[in-house]
Amino acid sequence: MAVRIVIIGCGAAGATAAMQARKFNRKAEITIFDIEPYSQYSRCGLPYTISGKVKEFEDLVLTPPENWASLKIDAKLGTKVTNIDHENREIFYTGDAGTGSMEYDSLVFATGAKNIDPPIKGLDKRRVYRLRTLDDAKALAQEVDKAKNVVVIGGGLIGMETAEAFHERGLNVIIVEFLPNILLAMVDPEMARIVEEHCSSHGLKILTNTSAQEILGDVTPTAVIVQNRENEEISEIPADVVVVATGVRPVTDLAENIGVQIGSTRGIMTDNHMMTNLEGVYACGDCAESFDFVTRRTIVSGLGTVAVRQARVAGINAAGGDIKFPGVIGAKVTKLFGLEIASTGLTDQLAKRYEIEVVRGSIKGTTKPPYFQGGHEIKVKTLFDKHTGRIIGGQIIGVEDAAMRINVLTLAIQKDLSALEVFDWENCYAPAICDTWDPIVLSADAARRRFRK
Amino acid sequence: MAVRIVIIGCGAAGATAAMQARKFNRKAEITIFDIEPYSQYSRCGLPYTISGKVKEFEDLVLTPPENWASLKIDAKLGTKVTNIDHENREIFYTGDAGTGSMEYDSLVFATGAKNIDPPIKGLDKRRVYRLRTLDDAKALAQEVDKAKNVVVIGGGLIGMETAEAFHERGLNVIIVEFLPNILLAMVDPEMARIVEEHCSSHGLKILTNTSAQEILGDVTPTAVIVQNRENEEISEIPADVVVVATGVRPVTDLAENIGVQIGSTRGIMTDNHMMTNLEGVYACGDCAESFDFVTRRTIVSGLGTVAVRQARVAGINAAGGDIKFPGVIGAKVTKLFGLEIASTGLTDQLAKRYEIEVVRGSIKGTTKPPYFQGGHEIKVKTLFDKHTGRIIGGQIIGVEDAAMRINVLTLAIQKDLSALEVFDWENCYAPAICDTWDPIVLSADAARRRFRK
Repeated sequence: MAVRIVIIGCGAAGATAAMQARKFNRKAEITIFDIEPYSQYSRCGLPYTISGKVKEFEDLVLTPPENWASLKIDAKLGTKVTNIDHENREIFYTGDAGTGSMEYDSLVFATGAKNIDPPIKGLDKRRVYRLRTLDDAKALAQEVDKAKNVVVIGGGLIGMETAEAFHERGLNVIIVEFLPNILLAMVDPEMARIVEEHCSSHGLKILTNTSAQEILGDVTPTAVIVQNRENEEISEIPADVVVVATGVRPVTDLAENIGVQIGSTRGIMTDNHMMTNLEGVYACGDCAESFDFVTRRTIVSGLGTVAVRQARVAGINAAGGDIKFPGVIGAKVTKLFGLEIASTGLTDQLAKRYEIEVVRGSIKGTTKPPYFQGGHEIKVKTLFDKHTGRIIGGQIIGVEDAAMRINVLTLAIQKDLSALEVFDWENCYAPAICDTWDPIVLSADAARRRFRK
Repeated sequence: MAVRIVIIGCGAAGATAAMQARKFNRKAEITIFDIEPYSQYSRCGLPYTISGKVKEFEDLVLTPPENWASLKIDAKLGTKVTNIDHENREIFYTGDAGTGSMEYDSLVFATGAKNIDPPIKGLDKRRVYRLRTLDDAKALAQEVDKAKNVVVIGGGLIGMETAEAFHERGLNVIIVEFLPNILLAMVDPEMARIVEEHCSSHGLKILTNTSAQEILGDVTPTAVIVQNRENEEISEIPADVVVVATGVRPVTDLAENIGVQIGSTRGIMTDNHMMTNLEGVYACGDCAESFDFVTRRTIVSGLGTVAVRQARVAGINAAGGDIKFPGVIGAKVTKLFGLEIASTGLTDQLAKRYEIEVVRGSIKGTTKPPYFQGGHEIKVKTLFDKHTGRIIGGQIIGVEDAAMRINVLTLAIQKDLSALEVFDWENCYAPAICDTWDPIVLSADAARRRFRK
């Protein structure tokens, strides 16, 4: 009998799991559920619907509903899985696809994550938004023509990208970040400050080390009360729209109900086959905990790249395959006001948390040879484990070629290279492209010299 | 006694050897000679003095003459080494630094290469140029305001970059390429054709499979007689300026005179310490033959990146060190009319010559996710050795991020990765940067599937 696969969640992870399962096993019976009425769309693209860099909401839909039929995958969208009887391997659902039940041999949780509300008063007002779903984006994008003052609470990737988008549309935008710097989940403070200065110079107002305490106003916001965490000064910043982007948490309730183990990260525990503690039950994407390549500790990465790679493993294994997920490196990039911010592996701060002593190679270089018109400054930082000598992280910031350069460091981490090996890398060179010794090589050289001391 | 190092040639290789020798050994007595009166300048930057992307000729000088004194390196510029008595380890010179002799313990040949004239009649006319030296560039750049019709003989990197520069300045430019396609030293025919179409669409005229036979005119050119090698048709193309860019040959006469062995490539044979067959005598850069990382065959790469890396090894070893050159990968890039052309390792054609059976991953991708405004098509080709499974080459063409992407493939070659390992690489992703599965990954995936057949 053909293997029956049920996938819960039709985001990047779920959709990829379904398609990879189909690629691997032509006969499998595959059903995919999602609470949302939309077929797989790009969550990362949501902020760009505000600025218009994504033209239509529909453009974000990566797998048009009709594709599922052609792949012989039964997509039950707008339909909630209400219960699972794992003993009898049966799920129950209700929604646009009707109410019913269905048996499975393999089950894949790709239930994603949901926003967590910070302890701020007044979050229940109208015109206070989160940005996780396509409907969120549709509602938020309508504010472009109505709002004047936007306060974004949270200076992580989503917060910063959303702030940039509103700023580009001519609105006054203030970022409120609780920590001493923005983007600390991807870069270290001295790198974050470069980004802060760059964004500020473009007119974005950033309040770091600041807690949002209350959203004032009757039905809709009028202002946000914030407190500077250093001097404890309290102030009121005008706001008619508030966006809360303070992080997410894995959605695991259905999994927990059937006895799937949850890890210390609050994600669904998986092994290197992306299988949970229950035989034949898999998890992938933002709901799943897997392991970090460098530290071998558990991690929920929250990254699209990781989600689709985990999903490929989960999907193929759910369909009878036997492949492994190699671990999360965690390469993260974004572009803010033309500045590329790129990071891979561990930051200094994460290394410290895990008690890894590091040797650093921090340099300021240029993207093109000095004699060629149009080069730009680029900041490169590489991090090596002092004891093993291996590269464990890197951060690059510059108005060009920062993100593409981080790709080299990611591969270097995946292949356990030493500073000398990164130094010995033969970068390409042409006056119109870059210089004979790439900034990455110079950074590795700086680290290499420090190892000898 | 301090080691006495004499370096012949103050190009990228010679200058790097001198500086690395100094870095390694503070006490070494270092002397560097060059026939040209200029201190180290960028040869690769020469074509860009025509277009103005390099503003002043002086900008190309990477090591101002006064720097040599501060490094305690005796730079004898405008001075020719006339003879070497290796038995007594003494060199003889004459020129701007006077006439004299000097003893050495270590000798480094960084004598570079010289243009080879193709068998074309009329090459001795005025306004027929080569482009190898700063003086060549100065003379050629003056033609921008005088010439109307420029014929460039040779569609390699230098020829194409020179043609682009003149075209940008509003001149009529025709490229005459003997082989069936331009740039065949770096890309395969199907990739070269993309470049040809792109350049043609910008108004550059390219005659491939065409031999230049004679430059007509009395004192200066009036036309070039060319023959189509396929149909043998002969035609006359108008020219008031001709640039000959048909390749170079290592300069080895001084080395040969003292019994240094020359290899089958016509370059000076070296071992992995960049030492010649004579103890204490080194060679690096365009005059030196070393070995190709993939094929382990001898090669003269002609690349600046390779020159400085070889020179670092030669310089440090000449100063008493003991380091090795890891071999040439041969990453090559350029940008023509906004299109980036990048290549690394072996091409299909080279692999064929060395009888290496290949498995290919050729894909057409996009630089950004489909929903994001502003992405561009990118063509990626990866080549794997069918028997060992290892990656041996790659070519990428696109109007953005082609060169930076080739860097990943170069590292993959240096670390002997398989198609599966390249596929498992975790590329970075953000809507404004690139998609979740990088085109390189898709290319490796295509190859990986072919391996299984």
